[in-house]
Amino acid sequence: MVVSAGYLPRIAAISHTRVCVQQLEPRVGDPAYNRGLTLNAIEEAAAGGAQVVVLPELANSGYMFESAEEAASLAISVDDPLIAEWADAAAGYELVLAAGFCERGEDGHTYNSAVVIDPSGVRAVFRKLHLWDREKLWFRPGDALPPVLETSVGRVSVVICYDLEFPELVRTVALAGTELLLVPTNWPLAERPADERPGEVINAMMAARINRMAIAAADRGGVERGQPWTGGSTIVDPDGWAAGENPWRAGEPRRPGPVFADLDLSRTRDKRWTELADVFADRRPELYGAVASVDDLALR
Amino acid sequence: MVVSAGYLPRIAAISHTRVCVQQLEPRVGDPAYNRGLTLNAIEEAAAGGAQVVVLPELANSGYMFESAEEAASLAISVDDPLIAEWADAAAGYELVLAAGFCERGEDGHTYNSAVVIDPSGVRAVFRKLHLWDREKLWFRPGDALPPVLETSVGRVSVVICYDLEFPELVRTVALAGTELLLVPTNWPLAERPADERPGEVINAMMAARINRMAIAAADRGGVERGQPWTGGSTIVDPDGWAAGENPWRAGEPRRPGPVFADLDLSRTRDKRWTELADVFADRRPELYGAVASVDDLALR
Repeated sequence: MVVSAGYLPRIAAISHTRVCVQQLEPRVGDPAYNRGLTLNAIEEAAAGGAQVVVLPELANSGYMFESAEEAASLAISVDDPLIAEWADAAAGYELVLAAGFCERGEDGHTYNSAVVIDPSGVRAVFRKLHLWDREKLWFRPGDALPPVLETSVGRVSVVICYDLEFPELVRTVALAGTELLLVPTNWPLAERPADERPGEVINAMMAARINRMAIAAADRGGVERGQPWTGGSTIVDPDGWAAGENPWRAGEPRRPGPVFADLDLSRTRDKRWTELADVFADRRPELYGAVASVDDLALR
Repeated sequence: MVVSAGYLPRIAAISHTRVCVQQLEPRVGDPAYNRGLTLNAIEEAAAGGAQVVVLPELANSGYMFESAEEAASLAISVDDPLIAEWADAAAGYELVLAAGFCERGEDGHTYNSAVVIDPSGVRAVFRKLHLWDREKLWFRPGDALPPVLETSVGRVSVVICYDLEFPELVRTVALAGTELLLVPTNWPLAERPADERPGEVINAMMAARINRMAIAAADRGGVERGQPWTGGSTIVDPDGWAAGENPWRAGEPRRPGPVFADLDLSRTRDKRWTELADVFADRRPELYGAVASVDDLALR
């Protein structure tokens, strides 16, 4: 492939959106502590000028449950006072907020969910579709695609942690016009080669690149009941490069706290690489769709 | 998400497959030169012990055509003596070969194709599905999914360059059991942040990671009619890490030549991250498939 003489110049940014991902260390089973932690984090992000704030997965409850009963005991409904406090903060600071929480559904089941809030209140609750590992023992998976929401900063959507590793899902929300994908996450620290970013961060970069969509992932840090976390909070621009990220190189200290970046989300509306190459228009869905099962593929 | 106590130990490698990607600099419009270049490259790879060799996209013709007529004039049929020479080499050295070539179809159209050859002869011809930029002026796109081939080294498939940026296609060949995806490519040099790999290489790493499949991409180098090439030839292991790659850091010299890596392809048959997490089994195709159009997505 070749960059044509007509390679598109990117339009000089007119307006930027300040995004903040807050890397927190919630304490499992300590909702009072986590309440203050999350409210302070929103305040700190707002003080830094954030128009969008993302908090980690399961920010109200912590993650390392020992039983389904423990998870259920820490679950809250979307009507919980904590969600109302988050909404008050979002309204007061005039920002869009996505936060992971341990949800008790109206059906009595426990879900790994995220709430998206803007100054008008709770806009949507999304329930994680792809449950990782022992989450399958604690949670019921969601059964609905993520919402795509028109907000003051543009069109946003939300997925949770392992959901982001399923390119079919990411493509789906991108095709719906998502400009900024919000990702509350808890990435367990995994072995990786020296001087490489966490694989989950690289995955986020590529999910952005191939869809020409921005992604903001708030990871958690610290160690919880023996589980060390990656601390890989990252904001990715629509070219797939990290516009802001926590330190990740060997020897750089992991630390909680905010990562900020200013994104020109209007760029996400142009899916062209060049005059004649467009990441959406160049798709061949008639072929992908033709594979009802892998048995339809020529295997010789 | 969390790494469970039962995180799967990777089985110690029993047998490895030596893969070679050959980064070449074909000359546009000089088929005699390109013939020698490709045959020497196969010989050199075999001398290094390669059981699988990948050559770049359009290895017989070069890339920077000035017109559809020029592309057509350099197109060869799969019955061309050059393909027979490649097949003789593959048989003589007992290896699997994938090479890009400018194809004249039996229908008279010009295609951007790749041939997969093993010691038994030509196994398949694949025609690029996603044409990049001005390729749309020279070529007709293919209309069939890639073949998935049982070979002496395992199950291989092939896509060409920009095809790899469409995760739907990559997932499709992975679901069909591809262990090693062969990628003849010509990546134009694009601007990128200092000390970052080329985006195309990072994309290949992630395509491997999320499918737990190995990928071998042979890029081209040099400058052709004013177009500098990336020279990003890379072999990616099924965890998504570069097992072999051309130099890419600032100040490192670009150079043509082979990159070798030894891969344990048997690992690609286990799609589990942990006892309870499996990149294929955890998919939710009933949801992805529910989106006939983006209008079906909740947009609020």
